Amino acid sequence: MSASASDLIAALKWRYATKVFDPTRKIPADIWSALEESLVLTPSSFGLQPWKFLVIQDQALRESLVPHAWKQRQVADCSHLLVMTVPRELGEDCIDANIARIVEVRGGTTDALAGLRNMVAGFRAQLSAKGQLMTWAKLQSYIALGQFMLAASLLGIDTCPMEGFVAEKFDEILGLDKTGHTTAVLCPAGYRSAADKYATLPKVRFESKDVIEHR
Amino acid sequence: MSASASDLIAALKWRYATKVFDPTRKIPADIWSALEESLVLTPSSFGLQPWKFLVIQDQALRESLVPHAWKQRQVADCSHLLVMTVPRELGEDCIDANIARIVEVRGGTTDALAGLRNMVAGFRAQLSAKGQLMTWAKLQSYIALGQFMLAASLLGIDTCPMEGFVAEKFDEILGLDKTGHTTAVLCPAGYRSAADKYATLPKVRFESKDVIEHR
Repeated sequence: MSASASDLIAALKWRYATKVFDPTRKIPADIWSALEESLVLTPSSFGLQPWKFLVIQDQALRESLVPHAWKQRQVADCSHLLVMTVPRELGEDCIDANIARIVEVRGGTTDALAGLRNMVAGFRAQLSAKGQLMTWAKLQSYIALGQFMLAASLLGIDTCPMEGFVAEKFDEILGLDKTGHTTAVLCPAGYRSAADKYATLPKVRFESKDVIEHR
Repeated sequence: MSASASDLIAALKWRYATKVFDPTRKIPADIWSALEESLVLTPSSFGLQPWKFLVIQDQALRESLVPHAWKQRQVADCSHLLVMTVPRELGEDCIDANIARIVEVRGGTTDALAGLRNMVAGFRAQLSAKGQLMTWAKLQSYIALGQFMLAASLLGIDTCPMEGFVAEKFDEILGLDKTGHTTAVLCPAGYRSAADKYATLPKVRFESKDVIEHR
């Protein structure tokens, strides 16, 4: 056990969707490094890790994104802008890359994993037939989002999950249109501003009895 | 700061997709209670919390689900089976419930929140026009999934995220077809069996340089 239940709940109650970041405060390198490692460790279905994470600190680049993020300043005022991207059309090459990595880490041969490869390729073919390849990859990226927000809050880092952006514009500015990836979701990270009135508002959640049912 | 960076990384390295649970070990009530509280606190877009979480401990019910979960025994052998469900068609009633809850928690009036309600309803209408209402709700449930798996690992609880199930059958057996909800994803929780050979395999993740890019 790495944390107590009360530490966990305290972190979740402390966090909120930060509306105003303090642009003068930067996340220390060792803390950010741990958060990057947590991203790398994110679980995904079949372990496919269908994502690339962009970490943007360049100020001019971030300012150029603000107009395409519903003018939300968090994109430019945070310490590190995390952009989660996924393939538009998850290809079989993603499966092969994963199989190759399994062999690299655990040993064995690609041939010995042919059964696994066929099973995952069959799953992929079903997604493809339903036009769900990008949707499925986005779902995986939201696992990363959920994990990242909790990880950050445990380390005292504020975040703001953001779906309010124009993916086409982000993809164009970030050059993703050339890579086959698309922007799935944003998560600016940094430190809340003392001026953010949202920081002290009571958190709004449904009551447990209204969202959890026991059988 | 509620945890150290090394505690966070240790928890993420300790966790894995548990293939064999020890059916004799049950999560203590105080730990499970904290995990339920963490679920309630999960962030979501617009704070809409478009989910109901089913926690299933009834053994006969869980056994009846196994055949529809690719025969994966985790569903029956875990301590607590968490079933994340979302509305098939997120209605405006979900927005109204959220607005009512804001007023309940923070005070004020529904009328004063008319602007917020209209904005969210406009977003919902766009999703509806694109046939994306269920997909969007599922994305939110994956935030809960990502957060839950990390929360559990911090408290020493094993989990196994599962997409391998027949949603229609789960919905039928759980009576969701009558409620307008559908099964989004499963996450059995409990304790790994000493016989689970997957527990000690090296974790397979791409290298940081292959999934994280700095700008």
